Amino acid sequence: MISIGLIGAGRIGSVHASHLRHNPHAKIVAVTDPQMSRARAIAVEHGARVVKDAAEVIAAKDIDAVVVASSTETHSAATIAAARAGKCVYCEKPIAPTLAEARQMVDALGKDHERVMVGFNRRFDRNHAAVQKDITAGRLGRVQTIQITSRGPNNVPSVDYLKVSGGLFFDKMIHFFDMVRWLTGEEPVDIVALGSVIADEVFRDVGDVDTAVATVRMKSGALCQIDNARRAVYGYDDRVEVFGTKGLIESSRITEGSIMRILDDKILTEGLPKDPMIRMAPSYEAAISAFVDFVGSFATPERLAVPTVHDGIRSQIMAEAATRSSREQRIVSIAEVEKLIA
Amino acid sequence: MISIGLIGAGRIGSVHASHLRHNPHAKIVAVTDPQMSRARAIAVEHGARVVKDAAEVIAAKDIDAVVVASSTETHSAATIAAARAGKCVYCEKPIAPTLAEARQMVDALGKDHERVMVGFNRRFDRNHAAVQKDITAGRLGRVQTIQITSRGPNNVPSVDYLKVSGGLFFDKMIHFFDMVRWLTGEEPVDIVALGSVIADEVFRDVGDVDTAVATVRMKSGALCQIDNARRAVYGYDDRVEVFGTKGLIESSRITEGSIMRILDDKILTEGLPKDPMIRMAPSYEAAISAFVDFVGSFATPERLAVPTVHDGIRSQIMAEAATRSSREQRIVSIAEVEKLIA
Amino acid sequence: MISIGLIGAGRIGSVHASHLRHNPHAKIVAVTDPQMSRARAIAVEHGARVVKDAAEVIAAKDIDAVVVASSTETHSAATIAAARAGKCVYCEKPIAPTLAEARQMVDALGKDHERVMVGFNRRFDRNHAAVQKDITAGRLGRVQTIQITSRGPNNVPSVDYLKVSGGLFFDKMIHFFDMVRWLTGEEPVDIVALGSVIADEVFRDVGDVDTAVATVRMKSGALCQIDNARRAVYGYDDRVEVFGTKGLIESSRITEGSIMRILDDKILTEGLPKDPMIRMAPSYEAAISAFVDFVGSFATPERLAVPTVHDGIRSQIMAEAATRSSREQRIVSIAEVEKLIA
Amino acid sequence: MISIGLIGAGRIGSVHASHLRHNPHAKIVAVTDPQMSRARAIAVEHGARVVKDAAEVIAAKDIDAVVVASSTETHSAATIAAARAGKCVYCEKPIAPTLAEARQMVDALGKDHERVMVGFNRRFDRNHAAVQKDITAGRLGRVQTIQITSRGPNNVPSVDYLKVSGGLFFDKMIHFFDMVRWLTGEEPVDIVALGSVIADEVFRDVGDVDTAVATVRMKSGALCQIDNARRAVYGYDDRVEVFGTKGLIESSRITEGSIMRILDDKILTEGLPKDPMIRMAPSYEAAISAFVDFVGSFATPERLAVPTVHDGIRSQIMAEAATRSSREQRIVSIAEVEKLIA
Repeated sequence: MISIGLIGAGRIGSVHASHLRHNPHAKIVAVTDPQMSRARAIAVEHGARVVKDAAEVIAAKDIDAVVVASSTETHSAATIAAARAGKCVYCEKPIAPTLAEARQMVDALGKDHERVMVGFNRRFDRNHAAVQKDITAGRLGRVQTIQITSRGPNNVPSVDYLKVSGGLFFDKMIHFFDMVRWLTGEEPVDIVALGSVIADEVFRDVGDVDTAVATVRMKSGALCQIDNARRAVYGYDDRVEVFGTKGLIESSRITEGSIMRILDDKILTEGLPKDPMIRMAPSYEAAISAFVDFVGSFATPERLAVPTVHDGIRSQIMAEAATRSSREQRIVSIAEVEKLIA
Repeated sequence: MISIGLIGAGRIGSVHASHLRHNPHAKIVAVTDPQMSRARAIAVEHGARVVKDAAEVIAAKDIDAVVVASSTETHSAATIAAARAGKCVYCEKPIAPTLAEARQMVDALGKDHERVMVGFNRRFDRNHAAVQKDITAGRLGRVQTIQITSRGPNNVPSVDYLKVSGGLFFDKMIHFFDMVRWLTGEEPVDIVALGSVIADEVFRDVGDVDTAVATVRMKSGALCQIDNARRAVYGYDDRVEVFGTKGLIESSRITEGSIMRILDDKILTEGLPKDPMIRMAPSYEAAISAFVDFVGSFATPERLAVPTVHDGIRSQIMAEAATRSSREQRIVSIAEVEKLIA
Repeated sequence: MISIGLIGAGRIGSVHASHLRHNPHAKIVAVTDPQMSRARAIAVEHGARVVKDAAEVIAAKDIDAVVVASSTETHSAATIAAARAGKCVYCEKPIAPTLAEARQMVDALGKDHERVMVGFNRRFDRNHAAVQKDITAGRLGRVQTIQITSRGPNNVPSVDYLKVSGGLFFDKMIHFFDMVRWLTGEEPVDIVALGSVIADEVFRDVGDVDTAVATVRMKSGALCQIDNARRAVYGYDDRVEVFGTKGLIESSRITEGSIMRILDDKILTEGLPKDPMIRMAPSYEAAISAFVDFVGSFATPERLAVPTVHDGIRSQIMAEAATRSSREQRIVSIAEVEKLIA
Repeated sequence: MISIGLIGAGRIGSVHASHLRHNPHAKIVAVTDPQMSRARAIAVEHGARVVKDAAEVIAAKDIDAVVVASSTETHSAATIAAARAGKCVYCEKPIAPTLAEARQMVDALGKDHERVMVGFNRRFDRNHAAVQKDITAGRLGRVQTIQITSRGPNNVPSVDYLKVSGGLFFDKMIHFFDMVRWLTGEEPVDIVALGSVIADEVFRDVGDVDTAVATVRMKSGALCQIDNARRAVYGYDDRVEVFGTKGLIESSRITEGSIMRILDDKILTEGLPKDPMIRMAPSYEAAISAFVDFVGSFATPERLAVPTVHDGIRSQIMAEAATRSSREQRIVSIAEVEKLIA
C-alpha cells in the first residue's frame, strides 16, 4: 500500500483523488491546497490529514509519493523538492509555464528525474494505446500520415483562464505534440502551424486563436496533421488516425449511448459527450494507476516506463515551434528552438 | 450467345430485360405480352421481334431459353411447355398460385424439371450469399438462431393486387421460407406464424395482415424467426442475422449515401432506400446472369446448381403451413401439409 | 440520508453494495449473510455492522429500507416481514421460486406491496429506457413488432446452478417478458416458445435448453419476438428493436473500445464485452439509485413509480406460459395460466 | 437529343462513352483517337462513325458538343477550336500541362469560355455535393476546418505515367484544391505543402513523392488540411470532413457490401473498394449528365453553372503554389503565383 500526498485539490487534483480512492494499492494520507476548504473536502473523504503547504507534504516521513496537481507555475519547485526528498512524483503537465523554466527544472532534477512521471494522460487511453501498440509492433508497416483531431468541449474557457493559458498551442495542442512522438517513437524535424479566430472574438482579444492546425514532419518523413478547436458545439471530439504502408488504424470518436433511430430518411444515433471528462476519465484513471505501479516498481529490478520530464520538455519545444510558426507564418525547425535552450 | 424469349413484359419482365441488355452472353430475340405496347417497348430497345403469345415463343427454333415473367397463374403451363420443347426456363416465383397446382406442375415436368430455374433472386444477393457461404463452410459452427427482417417499401400495394396476392405469407414471407432452407441447407419441421393488422385497415378488409412473424424449427433444432411488414415508413428494410456456436454473421440493412452529420446531440446518417429496387436490383441482375450461365452449362459435363421447382414447392408448403398456423392459432407441422399433396 | 440493511452478500448483493457506496443519499448500516465472511467483507468497507440474520435486519430501529439479495426461496418471507415492519424493500427477482408462491406473497403483502420495488434492472438501462420513452411519447406510432436479443455471456453456468435455475424461460427470458410489458405498457394475450439444445449437451442433461425463442402477442396485436442463448462465444449481446408505424428505434449492442482497423479487405472494430457486468452495471447502479429515490419519495405527496410485485408476478405468469408452450408444443394463452393461480 | 463528338477513346474517354450510352438526351455520333482500334470499339457500340482527327470532329455540322478526353497536352487546342466553332465542350482536367499554357488557353478562349465545362467530376459526387450544400445553406455556420483524405488505389501508376504526371500536387491533389474552393465558395490565401517518399522508392526516382499533405488557408481564415497518398494497400479511400461553428458534416469512406461478422473479440465489416471506379463512377456519370443538361440549357434563358476554365486555372495556381511550397519548404502565397501569369 503506497501512501500518497496530494499537492493541489482543484479540478484536476479532485479527479486524481477520486481515482486513487478506487485504487487498491494506494491511499492519500495528506492533502494541501491554498484553498483549505478544497483540501478538507478531499481529506474527509479519504480519511487523510490536511497539511499547511507543499513543503509539509514533501517533508512527511509517512509519504511515499506525491501528486503535483497545483497551478502550473508551482509544478517545477514542488517536483524538484519532492524528487530530491526521495519521493516519486506525478507531475501534471505542462511541467513549467515557459520553455526556459522547463529547461532549468530538468537541469535541477539531474538524475532524480527518474522518479518523476509527467501526466500525459492520453497515453493511457486504451484506444490510443492500441494505436501506439500497432505501430510499434509493425502491424501498419511504415507510418505515412497521422491525423489527430481534438475539438471541444462545447463551452469556451473563461477569459481569466485564457490570459494565462499560454495560447492554444501550449495549452491544448501540446497533448498531441506529445502524442505524435509517443505514437511514432521518433522525433520531429519541423512544424508549420496556422491559427484563426473564426468562432469567438474573445480569442482575438486575448491574442489567441480558436481554430488551429499544425503539420509535424518526423525524422522518417512521416507527416502528422493536427487540428484543434477550442470549442465544438456538438461536444468533445477526439480522434486519431494512422495510415501506414500496411493499413490504417483509428482511435475513433467516443459517442454517448447506443440508441439508433430510423425516422423518415435519416438514421439517428447518439452524439458526443458534452463533458470532456466522459471522454477522458478512463485515461486519467489509468494514468494514476500507472503511477502507483511505477512507484511500486522501484522495489523491483524492472523499472516501469512512463512519460518523463524529457517528454515534457520535448512537447514544450514543439509548442514553442508551433507558436512561432503561426505568428511568423513560416515553417520552424525543431533545431532552431532547441538552440534557444541549449 | 444465348437467344432468349421473354414471356411477360410487365414490371418484373422489364427488370429482367434491362439486365439482359448488359449481359454479354445473351440477347432477347422475341417478346410477348397481353399488352402489345409493353412488349413492343422492350422489343425496340433490344432489336427483338414481338410475337403473338407464349406458344409462339416456345415454338421458335431460334430461341434457346425462355424467361417466364407473366402473371402467376400462367407460370406453370408456360414453363411445362417450354421445358418439354427442350428449352431452359427461368420461371418467376411462385411457380403456381396454389400448392395443388404446384404439385401438378412438378409431376407434369418430370425429368424436364432439370431445365427449370426458379427466380428466388435473394439467393443471389452477394451479402446474403456470404452468409450462406459462412454457414456452409462451418465458420459459424452449428446454427442456433436465424433472424430475418423484411419490411417495406414505404407504400402499400393496391387493393386489386392484395386481393389476388395469396396473403402476406404466400406473397412476401415465402422468400424467407426459401431463404431459411437455403441458408441452413436443411428442411423445416414445423412453423408457427402470427399476423396482425396494425398499420392499415385495408389489410383487414381483404382478409390479410400487414404485420406478421413466424418461427420455423429446422431438423437440427435451429430456430428461425422471421418478421415482415407490408409497409415501413422509413423505406425498404432487409436484414438477415445468423447466430451459431462459433459466432455471428449479419447481412445488414442497405442505406443510401455515405453522409454523416453531427449536429447538437445527434449523429445523423442517411436512411434506407424508399425504392425496393435500389436494394434488390443487384440480386435480380445476378439471378438472370446465373440463368444465362446455367443455360450455357448444359453444353458441359458440369451442370450448375440453381433454385429448382423443388425449392419452389417446398417454400409453398411452408407458406401454406404458416397461413394455417396464423388462422388456426397453432403450431403446424410440415408433415401435415405434405400429406395434403402426397 | 437513508439507512439500508443488506440481506444477502453474494454476487448480486455485492453489486448493490458497491453502487450504494457511491450514492450520496444512502448508506448501508447492517449486513447479513449465511456466510458470515461475505457479510463481514462488505460491512468493513461500508463501516456497517454484521448482524445474525434477516430478522435482525428487519427488526432494527435504525434501518429505513432493506435490500433483499439473498437466494430466491428466501425473497418472499424477507420481503413480507420487512414491508410489514414498515420498511421499504428492494426485492431481487424472481420474487419467488414458483408462481404459486409468488401469488401467496402478493396476497400476504396486501397493501404493503406499495413499499416494495422489484429489481428489474434492465428497466433502468438508459438506452432501453429511451426506447420505452419513445414508444410512450408516441414517436414510433403504433408498435408493430419488437425484437429482443439476449445472448451470452461466453461461459456456461454451473450444473448446480442450472438444476435450480427453473430453466431458461424463468431464469433468463423472464427479464424480456417484463420488458415487453414495460415497453408497450400493455398486457400479453398469448405466448409461443420453442427451445433447443444445440451448443451444450449439459442443458439436455438438466432438462433445460441452451437456445430458445418466444413470440408474445400483446393486446393491441403487437408481435414481440425474443431470442435467447445461454452462451455466446463472442461475448454478452443484448439488443432491443421496436418497429412502429412511424419509425424504428433500437437499443443497440454495446461494444468495447473505439478502435477501428482497415487491413486488407476488412474493417475491424472491437467486439462485445465478455463480462456481462460491463453491459449491465450502469442499469444496476441506476436501479438501486431509483430505489433510494423511491424510499425518499415516501415523505412527499408524489410517490415514484418503480417495478412492483405485480410486475414480478406478471412476468412469472409469462415464463410459466412459455415453459408450457415449449414443452407441449402449442400456443399458450395467458388466461390459461392466470386461472392456475386465480 | 444532343449529338456528341468524342475526342479521345482511352481510359477516361471510354468511361464517358459508357455513361453517355445510358443518357436518354444525348448520343455519340463520331469518335476519334490516335489508336483507331480504340475509336472503332466505341463507335461500333454506339452506332457512331470513326473520324480521322479532332479537327474533323470539330468541323462536323451534325455535332452539337464535344467531349475532350485526349491526352493533356491536346486539351487546350481542341477546346479552343471547338468552342470557337460554336460547340459546347466538356474538357477533361487539367486544362493544360502547365500553368502558362492554361493562362494562354483562357486568354485565347475569351468569351467562348462560357461554352466550356471542365471535368471536375468530384463536384458531382452526391455525398460531396451534400457537404457543399450544407455549407452554402449555412447549416454548419462559419467553416473552421476542412479535412480531405484521398488515398489509393492499391496499385502504383507506371513509371512512364509518373514521369509525365506533373507530380502528386498537379496530378492528384489538384482535385482537392478545386474542392476546397468549391466547398467554401471562397479563394485561398496561401498554401503550405509537405511531401515524403515512404512507401515506394520509385517516386523518389522520378522526382515525385508518394505521401503528401497540404494546408490551405482561405480568405475567411478557414483552414483546410489535405492528405494524399498515391497508394493504399486497403483500397481506394476518399473522405471529406467539414467542421463549422454549428456542427460537422462528413462525406464518409465508401465501403463494399453490408456484411458484418462478430467472431471472437472483433466485429468485421467489409473494406474499401480496390477499384477506384467503384468509388467514382457515379460522379463521372453525374458529371457527363450535367454536361448534357448544360448543353441543353443554351436554348433557355437560364444557363446552368458548371466548373469552368476559371476553376481549372485556379486549381492549377494552387497546385503550383503547393509544389513550390513542398520544394522550397516555405508557405507560399497565392498572390506570388498569380503574379507569374499576370
